[in-house]
Amino acid sequence: MAKGLPKQSEDFPGWYVAVVREADLAEHGLARGSQVIKPYGYTIWENIQRALDDRFKATGHENFMFPVLIPESVIAKEKDHVEGFSHEFWTVTQVGGQELEEKLILRPTSEAAIWNAYANWIQSYRDLPLLYNQWCNVFRYELRTRLFLRTSEFLWQEGHTAHATAEEAWDEAVQMLHVYREVAEDVLAIPVLWGRKSAAERFAGADETLPIEALMRDAKALQCGTSHYLGQNFAKAYDVTFLNKEGEQEHAYGTSWGFSSRMVGGTVMSHGDDDGLRLPPAVAPYQVVVVPIYRSDDERASVREVVAKIRDELAGNGVRVRVDDRDQHRPGFKFAEWELKGVPIRIEIGPKDVDAGQVVVVDRVTREKKALPTSEALSSMVGALESVQKSLFEDALKFREANTHEIESFDKFKEGVEAEGGFWVGAWCGAADCEARIAGETKTSIRVLPLELEDPGAPCMHCGKPGVERATWARAY
Amino acid sequence: MAKGLPKQSEDFPGWYVAVVREADLAEHGLARGSQVIKPYGYTIWENIQRALDDRFKATGHENFMFPVLIPESVIAKEKDHVEGFSHEFWTVTQVGGQELEEKLILRPTSEAAIWNAYANWIQSYRDLPLLYNQWCNVFRYELRTRLFLRTSEFLWQEGHTAHATAEEAWDEAVQMLHVYREVAEDVLAIPVLWGRKSAAERFAGADETLPIEALMRDAKALQCGTSHYLGQNFAKAYDVTFLNKEGEQEHAYGTSWGFSSRMVGGTVMSHGDDDGLRLPPAVAPYQVVVVPIYRSDDERASVREVVAKIRDELAGNGVRVRVDDRDQHRPGFKFAEWELKGVPIRIEIGPKDVDAGQVVVVDRVTREKKALPTSEALSSMVGALESVQKSLFEDALKFREANTHEIESFDKFKEGVEAEGGFWVGAWCGAADCEARIAGETKTSIRVLPLELEDPGAPCMHCGKPGVERATWARAY
Repeated sequence: MAKGLPKQSEDFPGWYVAVVREADLAEHGLARGSQVIKPYGYTIWENIQRALDDRFKATGHENFMFPVLIPESVIAKEKDHVEGFSHEFWTVTQVGGQELEEKLILRPTSEAAIWNAYANWIQSYRDLPLLYNQWCNVFRYELRTRLFLRTSEFLWQEGHTAHATAEEAWDEAVQMLHVYREVAEDVLAIPVLWGRKSAAERFAGADETLPIEALMRDAKALQCGTSHYLGQNFAKAYDVTFLNKEGEQEHAYGTSWGFSSRMVGGTVMSHGDDDGLRLPPAVAPYQVVVVPIYRSDDERASVREVVAKIRDELAGNGVRVRVDDRDQHRPGFKFAEWELKGVPIRIEIGPKDVDAGQVVVVDRVTREKKALPTSEALSSMVGALESVQKSLFEDALKFREANTHEIESFDKFKEGVEAEGGFWVGAWCGAADCEARIAGETKTSIRVLPLELEDPGAPCMHCGKPGVERATWARAY
Repeated sequence: MAKGLPKQSEDFPGWYVAVVREADLAEHGLARGSQVIKPYGYTIWENIQRALDDRFKATGHENFMFPVLIPESVIAKEKDHVEGFSHEFWTVTQVGGQELEEKLILRPTSEAAIWNAYANWIQSYRDLPLLYNQWCNVFRYELRTRLFLRTSEFLWQEGHTAHATAEEAWDEAVQMLHVYREVAEDVLAIPVLWGRKSAAERFAGADETLPIEALMRDAKALQCGTSHYLGQNFAKAYDVTFLNKEGEQEHAYGTSWGFSSRMVGGTVMSHGDDDGLRLPPAVAPYQVVVVPIYRSDDERASVREVVAKIRDELAGNGVRVRVDDRDQHRPGFKFAEWELKGVPIRIEIGPKDVDAGQVVVVDRVTREKKALPTSEALSSMVGALESVQKSLFEDALKFREANTHEIESFDKFKEGVEAEGGFWVGAWCGAADCEARIAGETKTSIRVLPLELEDPGAPCMHCGKPGVERATWARAY
């Protein structure tokens, strides 16, 4: 058992800080609000990147790279956009010790720079669609820093597409929402709700924002990724027109969509337990750790020989395997460390196991110790990893279901969310002022609305006016 | 033939600018000296990244990520280092509209931030070695911008390792030099010289800098990557000590090594010809382009069916294939465009070819048109790509050999390098003042010295004092 971890149920924020530190995922950087993503945490992010990037390419997107520095006058052209972000700007005013004529903003997101360029890239409907993405760092000043979740610089991808019709752009935004849903659920084992945001929660400059939302193990919601339908807003701000098939000049339609390194934190908070991380095999830096057990040099030699064979066979089957042959630590220490680090499956092997032609297999979810013939353990390993992946998803889904509540009355919602968090679902009148009052009184926000409007068949739980849709509310990160 | 490209032999800089623009590799960004790497150029960079990253991991390295912003006081701790870079600093002085208490520098490289952290990461010899790398953007102010080659923000990887002994750190620096050599030669098809830099050409803060150097097709040299042996310099500046096996506190030994997006430009300048790019198949975004030829709708249908089969079979064999089925362009236009974009192999197929069960295959190096039975063309495609890769390397090697000269006298060197560029090799006394005079009079610099000192058996070509080693001089980017 890992020492020094607060109990998750008693002090979730303290548990999160401790597990990020003890599992060696990240630490604070030198500049205010910045973070260092350490190798173990970064490898999780690399695995997330690969899963997303493969899907972006399979849906016809290519990567490119725009500069970090955006002139202040360019970012100011889309009015809603600059108002949404200006309090978070990091600003370069000097170069080589000299004052710049115009201030440069470190990109908080790149719509401004990219749509400014698209004005030159797009002339005719034949140039469309543009289906591009970039993997980069972005900068938003944060007063209250939480590693992965809220930092002044973070890593993400931002897709930026341009289309000839509103319908095509909308379909793209919905397609990318479902790519995010798939990666969250199938790769990170995090069940998500998906749909629309209310106008109050939209991205600055978007006509619609489509989020995926998950419930962390403290019953608070985390926005896990967003896909924005931009309509013609950025095209109008940056004068991006094209000659359409009818021979008329028209403004292009846009989308943008982002998924960030905060999801390393989201993975920690979705699956971790009192003993540390539980990583989904699809993103775990090591899927299997092998711990050799020995006392004498002779035992060590015979165990090591078998361990090397196990490692080679697993690696040959595409399993990410790590042999922990450090001499300075005892097996019990190693078991606890790899449990803390969330490795899905551990193999233990000592001299008696070698003699018996077996290994001991322990998975991070059930914690059961099983002695298996070595050949069987190896041939069943890919299946065992899939089973851990599935268990984590099912655990998280059960947790979410147990923490999702139908709103019977506003008062019960207010009391309930204060007492136990969770998702709260009920009819809403659709009015922004009513939304603001509910949010203020409950310290929640609308996390998601259905993608397609559907009559909730009930009046608004707060104002009693006719309901227009069912909203899902929660307290959120 | 591509229109608008200056002849490479008559106007190399103009040719480079035109080919980068026409092949859609990159364009200038909004902030001074910045660049937008467009999808076709970025895909080349992604392929370079993959080749490097696979080799970094195979040699035991992991990736991590440090923040862009470094407090001025931290970067100032290594004196040589800050002097080497301060005139290139981009400086953040404001956040959210407020002045910062301490200025933040956009990293020109990350030794300062990383060694500052290593002071906490390293306690004992058991913590060593640290074998880490990051893929990121770095910032160095440039007055004279050239896309890929010299920009104020560029992309690279920077490896940062720490070791318990000088010997181990030196071996690491040499190992990474050879990783760079291998990627340059086997992946980019660029033959390189490798060895040491003179003290005058060293990285600010390094004890030795080990470069790979290539000759571009204008006979100017390009530094393609550098691996630095840092000795204990950064460990002393940032107080990175460890308890060694003998129980004593000792400063750690370091290396750092970088390879950047300038090598997209290096690939252009190593292989391009008057008709545009010639891309090595190992990094070409598309290795094969298929151009269907038809007049009537019937012809189009029958050609398209065969084209789809060809595409699927090539893709199934791991070939990056693109079908150019744009209706608005004639085949001749497409041929010229894909030649300009450097695609290694083109397949043409028209109705007569379909009837004859054949395709026409043209490679970008020999330009010969070969009609081949379709099945043979497909089964030989991987081999044909390897052959293009080999030809490009051999062409570049022949060019370098023809442009490498033994220095017979200082005057002949001075005249020769002025007339025809190239590498010039000769004995040198080893004195910095003599090096400075030679460099000044010839507008060259020492590109590389042998890794191991070897008596050149001749006096210094300039001062006549005893030679200590053979230096390779050139004018360089």
